[in-house]
Amino acid sequence: MDKSKIPHVVVSRLPIYLRALEHAQQEGLTCISSQELSERLGVSAAQIRKDLSMFGEYGKQGRGYPVAALADALRRHLQVDKVWDVVLVGVGDLGHALARYKGFTHRGFRIAMAFDRDPEKIGTQAGDLIVEDIRTLARRVQEAGIKIGMIATPAAAAQEVANMLVFAGVKAILNYAPIHLTVPDDVRVEYLDPVIPLQRMTYYL
Amino acid sequence: MDKSKIPHVVVSRLPIYLRALEHAQQEGLTCISSQELSERLGVSAAQIRKDLSMFGEYGKQGRGYPVAALADALRRHLQVDKVWDVVLVGVGDLGHALARYKGFTHRGFRIAMAFDRDPEKIGTQAGDLIVEDIRTLARRVQEAGIKIGMIATPAAAAQEVANMLVFAGVKAILNYAPIHLTVPDDVRVEYLDPVIPLQRMTYYL
Repeated sequence: MDKSKIPHVVVSRLPIYLRALEHAQQEGLTCISSQELSERLGVSAAQIRKDLSMFGEYGKQGRGYPVAALADALRRHLQVDKVWDVVLVGVGDLGHALARYKGFTHRGFRIAMAFDRDPEKIGTQAGDLIVEDIRTLARRVQEAGIKIGMIATPAAAAQEVANMLVFAGVKAILNYAPIHLTVPDDVRVEYLDPVIPLQRMTYYL
Repeated sequence: MDKSKIPHVVVSRLPIYLRALEHAQQEGLTCISSQELSERLGVSAAQIRKDLSMFGEYGKQGRGYPVAALADALRRHLQVDKVWDVVLVGVGDLGHALARYKGFTHRGFRIAMAFDRDPEKIGTQAGDLIVEDIRTLARRVQEAGIKIGMIATPAAAAQEVANMLVFAGVKAILNYAPIHLTVPDDVRVEYLDPVIPLQRMTYYL
């Protein structure tokens, strides 16, 4: 399959399908119909069938999708059938919450290193990690070959941190800081500023 | 202006424009061109001009947008020219980080109450708040007329909490729990499961 042929909007729904399939699996379901997935996700059944048909023939007429096999296939396509090491930068309240969050590992991610520039934080514990000095970030991340970074610093520091991550070879950044990042074309950024979705809802209130 | 005539995809970009304008304002800029906004946001200048034209004639040929006036207008449209009270449910690591987060108030939101069901947490401090017993949520939220909720509980509790929030009159839910919520049509939900954007990026790595 040529990855570039799958529209990004379809790719962006795949993790949502995978999460729903993993929940279905936990509930003990072996098959699930596009209709039932639709009710669980608020995406139309036709859209689900169309999206998933791009990845092969998983659905059987009248029987629905085989939950485990389809989840395996999506994990392979999303490349989360392995566990990615992630570097966390910024160990304030949010950074601590991320370092201690138990929901990453079984979904393909592990925070492997945490950095801060505050001397009071360097050397302290964050989850199972010891916070490291940001001045050592480039070398440590390069040596470990880490490709994914999470930025949980204040907005004022985020662009500089992004530059450091890019320099160290990171190709995917999850940015919690409330600021747009400028990065080279071969680096992807996703944003998790909580105010943005809140403001998207107040428009309609 | 008829709100229902503005496509949701345009509405979803407005908070991003507002955030960029607020940063420009902090930098002391009084005018900003669609081209410069484009470079800051990775949205095309033509798209920005088209989106913003739906809300009135703010741009002047050759001079760009007046930063303060356009930010004011967007705040009015998004209804964040006031501060909304928000109820937080779930005061684990993430809930604590949210309760202590300083970035809400000047962008239209204030966590006004925090609830948990764990007796060890009820009565303790979270940011400036005292954690309250979830069994009192419906009455407290109804009395205060709060319309926005944040769910920071484990996935297994999130749907039940969403039901309680809806029952109490909440119309907008920001859900951090990694699970899709089923709510009535007049309630909006936005999701902030960090694994979803991470998996969207690993597809391309």
